Amino acid sequence: MTNLPYLTPLTGEVLRAAGVPEGWDFGIADKVRFYELDALNHVNNVAYLRWFETLRIPYFRDYQVSSYRADDPQLVLMTNAARYHAPLYLNDSYVVTGRTVSYRNTSFRMEYAVFTETGLKTTGESVIVCLEQDAKTKRPLPKAAISAFQSRDGAVQE
Amino acid sequence: MTNLPYLTPLTGEVLRAAGVPEGWDFGIADKVRFYELDALNHVNNVAYLRWFETLRIPYFRDYQVSSYRADDPQLVLMTNAARYHAPLYLNDSYVVTGRTVSYRNTSFRMEYAVFTETGLKTTGESVIVCLEQDAKTKRPLPKAAISAFQSRDGAVQE
Amino acid sequence: MTNLPYLTPLTGEVLRAAGVPEGWDFGIADKVRFYELDALNHVNNVAYLRWFETLRIPYFRDYQVSSYRADDPQLVLMTNAARYHAPLYLNDSYVVTGRTVSYRNTSFRMEYAVFTETGLKTTGESVIVCLEQDAKTKRPLPKAAISAFQSRDGAVQE
Amino acid sequence: MTNLPYLTPLTGEVLRAAGVPEGWDFGIADKVRFYELDALNHVNNVAYLRWFETLRIPYFRDYQVSSYRADDPQLVLMTNAARYHAPLYLNDSYVVTGRTVSYRNTSFRMEYAVFTETGLKTTGESVIVCLEQDAKTKRPLPKAAISAFQSRDGAVQE
Repeated sequence: MTNLPYLTPLTGEVLRAAGVPEGWDFGIADKVRFYELDALNHVNNVAYLRWFETLRIPYFRDYQVSSYRADDPQLVLMTNAARYHAPLYLNDSYVVTGRTVSYRNTSFRMEYAVFTETGLKTTGESVIVCLEQDAKTKRPLPKAAISAFQSRDGAVQE
Repeated sequence: MTNLPYLTPLTGEVLRAAGVPEGWDFGIADKVRFYELDALNHVNNVAYLRWFETLRIPYFRDYQVSSYRADDPQLVLMTNAARYHAPLYLNDSYVVTGRTVSYRNTSFRMEYAVFTETGLKTTGESVIVCLEQDAKTKRPLPKAAISAFQSRDGAVQE
Repeated sequence: MTNLPYLTPLTGEVLRAAGVPEGWDFGIADKVRFYELDALNHVNNVAYLRWFETLRIPYFRDYQVSSYRADDPQLVLMTNAARYHAPLYLNDSYVVTGRTVSYRNTSFRMEYAVFTETGLKTTGESVIVCLEQDAKTKRPLPKAAISAFQSRDGAVQE
Repeated sequence: MTNLPYLTPLTGEVLRAAGVPEGWDFGIADKVRFYELDALNHVNNVAYLRWFETLRIPYFRDYQVSSYRADDPQLVLMTNAARYHAPLYLNDSYVVTGRTVSYRNTSFRMEYAVFTETGLKTTGESVIVCLEQDAKTKRPLPKAAISAFQSRDGAVQE
């Protein structure tokens, strides 16, 4: 995946050309850093959750979930999970991808996957709740976000 | 939970006296650090997974899963998940607890919970696989570990 | 230093009893965590700077530099440095200490040191500037802070 | 600096075209991540030290200081310092650069600088010691590294 531009949101065709399977239409190419290794010399499992977080920032912007302004919703991760498939090492180039698979009135479920040239390395999942700035009151998802979840990711209403 | 000794493995009665519910018999008291907050000013969800990791080190030693020597198994987290219940803030004192709920020949399932004086804040779960030092070949769990999972945590064979 | 209470501000006599040399009168006992190790299996040098940060929070409160409220100054680290003396390993108990050695109208210089039972492991230094909430305009240090720097740490005006 | 390829070692002309001043001939373009912000909403000062570390890995390889193999030297940071010039925010694109300014028989002094389109944001400095794999015995710097320090960075013998 060394031919992909790093740290730049990538979509359908570009991801496909790099070998990312159908169904993953938003991704970011990145590289394993020294501080993401642990004492066992491979990527520590907590780093995966950081990668999902790093992906969500441009995803939320692009899918109009939030533009991180004062009147935007607070987005709280109710659940956050990673599943290991194969180890990653220093300097490995990878693509972290994400999509919304389903949504309700005030929450949505995202899935993540990490790919390198040698295949799938990690998957993950979050349920994210949309709150008012008081961090308590639930707030309906923006209509534009639901529309993007449906049209771009094929998300279904739960 | 300010009356608990920090960073020292705590068991049954001490945890009970501090208000940790029955069923959680191994814990560590700790305190929220500045670097665990994110730009929203509460504990970032990735920090929870770090706390579970920090708990596992003395838990593995105490339950004889590993003593982190050259001939010990490699323990790989196949899944790692956290669930948010309520926010945590700078300097909050908390207890992170863990237990093994079930096991197979070469793997086991742990659950985690984080409590403060005002109740449950976070839960979590991992499936952990026991490998040889080649990081590929599955290795049976140490008998002493299975015995501790059963007698101390009430773990059941899956 | 295993006899010290962890994560609790410690002052003069307690530190002295634990073998911390004269001149260090504010400290926190803590323990090396797995995630602070790097792939070389000892504490990564960046972790030291985290420890200094973790110490500054209660120090600033105790010395009345800031109570982290809306009308408090913004404290910006103009310089931040660590010096390695000896390695630290997983589960090592240590005390991180700090003091203000000098001050000007709107800034002050802190020194840090990390000790274990086997002696000095790390030192450090920061110059910290006191700003208004606009993060630009310099703001005079609180009088109470200067007074504490002088009387408790023997700080001198630069 | 958005026209630079990210996470790819950059040298002289490319850096110059992006506005990096003369004298900085090895750099990496990167982007501020959410987890590098602190509760004050700008890049936490500890993140700068991480960026210097991330730069050193390809720098050491390119300058033949180490290729991170079993018979390579252990490189220990004796000192590590950062100086703040201006704040950085989420998604800012930056270039982190490094150079060796001087060397002795078994150690060398690196300087770092971080630039964005609006100028210099951070500088830094480390003294790095070259040790045998026992992490104690000093080891002479590789001849090829000294040669690269001199010819590429203009480093002088101390």
